[in-house]
Amino acid sequence: MTTVNETISAEADARRTKANVEALERMVGAEPVLVGVAAAGDVVPGMTPTTILTSGAPLEWPEYTGGQRRAILYGAVYEGLAGSVEDAEAKIDAGEIQVRSTQQHACIGSVAGIYTASMPVFVVRDEAHGNTAFCNFYEGKSRYRLNYGSYDQEVADGLRWLETTMAPVLAESLAGAPIPLKPMMARALRLGDELHSRNTAATLLLQRELTPRLFALATTPEWRTRVEEVMDFFLANDYTFLRLSMAAAKATADAAHGVEHSSLLTGMAINCREFAVRVSGLGDEWFRGGHPELQGRFFDGFTEADAEWIGGESCVTETVGLGGMAQACAPSLMDYQGGTFQAMLENNEAMYEITSAEHPDYKIPAFGFRGTPVGVDLHAVIATGRTPLIDGGLAGRSGGQIGAGLLRPRIEAFTAAAAAYAERYPTSPAS
Amino acid sequence: MTTVNETISAEADARRTKANVEALERMVGAEPVLVGVAAAGDVVPGMTPTTILTSGAPLEWPEYTGGQRRAILYGAVYEGLAGSVEDAEAKIDAGEIQVRSTQQHACIGSVAGIYTASMPVFVVRDEAHGNTAFCNFYEGKSRYRLNYGSYDQEVADGLRWLETTMAPVLAESLAGAPIPLKPMMARALRLGDELHSRNTAATLLLQRELTPRLFALATTPEWRTRVEEVMDFFLANDYTFLRLSMAAAKATADAAHGVEHSSLLTGMAINCREFAVRVSGLGDEWFRGGHPELQGRFFDGFTEADAEWIGGESCVTETVGLGGMAQACAPSLMDYQGGTFQAMLENNEAMYEITSAEHPDYKIPAFGFRGTPVGVDLHAVIATGRTPLIDGGLAGRSGGQIGAGLLRPRIEAFTAAAAAYAERYPTSPAS
Repeated sequence: MTTVNETISAEADARRTKANVEALERMVGAEPVLVGVAAAGDVVPGMTPTTILTSGAPLEWPEYTGGQRRAILYGAVYEGLAGSVEDAEAKIDAGEIQVRSTQQHACIGSVAGIYTASMPVFVVRDEAHGNTAFCNFYEGKSRYRLNYGSYDQEVADGLRWLETTMAPVLAESLAGAPIPLKPMMARALRLGDELHSRNTAATLLLQRELTPRLFALATTPEWRTRVEEVMDFFLANDYTFLRLSMAAAKATADAAHGVEHSSLLTGMAINCREFAVRVSGLGDEWFRGGHPELQGRFFDGFTEADAEWIGGESCVTETVGLGGMAQACAPSLMDYQGGTFQAMLENNEAMYEITSAEHPDYKIPAFGFRGTPVGVDLHAVIATGRTPLIDGGLAGRSGGQIGAGLLRPRIEAFTAAAAAYAERYPTSPAS
Repeated sequence: MTTVNETISAEADARRTKANVEALERMVGAEPVLVGVAAAGDVVPGMTPTTILTSGAPLEWPEYTGGQRRAILYGAVYEGLAGSVEDAEAKIDAGEIQVRSTQQHACIGSVAGIYTASMPVFVVRDEAHGNTAFCNFYEGKSRYRLNYGSYDQEVADGLRWLETTMAPVLAESLAGAPIPLKPMMARALRLGDELHSRNTAATLLLQRELTPRLFALATTPEWRTRVEEVMDFFLANDYTFLRLSMAAAKATADAAHGVEHSSLLTGMAINCREFAVRVSGLGDEWFRGGHPELQGRFFDGFTEADAEWIGGESCVTETVGLGGMAQACAPSLMDYQGGTFQAMLENNEAMYEITSAEHPDYKIPAFGFRGTPVGVDLHAVIATGRTPLIDGGLAGRSGGQIGAGLLRPRIEAFTAAAAAYAERYPTSPAS
């Protein structure tokens, strides 16, 4: 005999399953396309000339500390909103400059993830569902970059070059000819990328796609010079594609967000204080917990003691079946973040336990072209105690990148989300 | 007490070991560099306007049969040496056209490996040892190509385009600026190539290297059009690099050839009648045996019964630690030639049993960056009964490529070589 509670519980399960199928279909069915490049202030919804965006679940300004706080202040100086970091601090305190989370503006942040209005962004639209996401540009391979909390004349010059040379060249090259990203990403997985910490192949494929376009632009000496500079940047920077895989992943995750009853993860984000997750059926709230455990490989004699959490949202790639979910595609990553290939295979394999499906387009050659594990189910994380594995870069206290490695989120944020889910979608009259 | 014979044998072993170390050092120390592109007739030593080269250990003209014979005749027609295949046949019979082995001219042939004097070749010099090798161009991805024994107007037009557009553009782009191939090849192994049956990453890297050069060439409308056509060819043909990896491997193998007492393999080659090997210390003789066993994946409903041996020397890549020796780099290859990744790992691992060293530059990420097995020792092949594993394309009886797969050479050719070695380098007065 079935009790009333069991009936209600079975109905809730059925509703959740249906919702998760819908969210998952939206996630794997997303078709992210690079449609343009523009200044953040011109295209990012809600972005004003005095807005600064930064990575992670939203915090009040006084809560930002260390490298992330510093990066926000540097952003204000770079944008010309303040003459110095002290001035910037005063103006933010006074509300003349507004600090907001990237997540509140359909943006996605690499490490500190600083956006100011004049910075160029990639505009990526999910053609299947119509939503748009944005990511600003990779600054180049120097360890010292604004997104790693560093700022000096060289960093500023690099950012200005992106604005004045890279952005107009890419914008022109995309005019009327958007680039579908999903086929390129699927292909890069066959070429040894996992599209979070390794983007070498995708960068090569993007460059190949852009080459005839750049070629067509070089009709005057001035454009020829610009185009040559852009080609040199690509040649020197194998990481360039990461911002596109992030924007594509953000558009993909957003497409799956907002399905009532769905317990699928649609976001993971780090700020200086916490790791947080977002769930499809739980609205825009972020559920927070302590920072992930770290298994890093440090550059140049740095150690774990030198590491500092200054934000990071590139784990949106793991949210949609890439990065740690595709580690087995990228044995060369060992060189960058340590570990063994056997461990990478096992790590990757274990992710099928907490995901709902195998991606129909993103495949793992080493697993006989099995689809990557995709659609992290909050309840599977709680049931197994296993959290999504993240590949990531590591920032240092004194600024700059000091290593790379594996991030294993702690369970807290997921537990908080599960509690919220139980409250919002009670499975029995008593609960 | 040591007998006289044992002493002689120990001395012979020591001589062989020393010779193998030298041959191996030459093999792994080779520095193949793409120095130019030119018509075969202008640069290949001994090539005359009426010479046609073809793959494999040399045969007398009447011995060439089937698709390889047909391809030779087509070559004569393409070159304008004969008006028809019948005419070509008569002129070869009469000695007016000379058929020679690529191997007699420092060339290396893909499948039938037809070279005529007007065909462009890559010129690859081993900068470490000064020797030069040549390979002609990839015809594009059509199943029907001269090197697969096919010929019609489209094949001829494609070959003419290589001659009149591709070759001059590449020649100009290389003028005074040679391209070191080894670093590119080492990198491609990290990007999922094994540089015999998979060259996607290397082709991308080559294209990236060429892009600024091509860009610089496009100064007139005529050159602009040519350059655009070449870029389109690269975009459409992921296999383009194979001819460079073959030329690089040939230059590398040749560098290690001719070390007295060395039992290292310096060549493997297939013609329509046999598989043959060459050994460093055994001069220019080829030791012959039956064709390899085939473990293929056939396209479009073809079966093994449709396959025909029409020649092939791309197994020079295996000779220098690539291809089957680097299979574990290239899980995506399964898609093309079948098998499982586990089998690929095991196949690759087994090759360490018959090789002398781990390559210092060519590394396998999936093996924790262990060097590829390199320097096949004839005596290790005999002792283990294990022959070098070859990745390869498969030709059909009616022309064209009909599949791809693994080739396992039979032991015969190696046994013949071992007998010759024992005869040339006797280890006791009695032997």
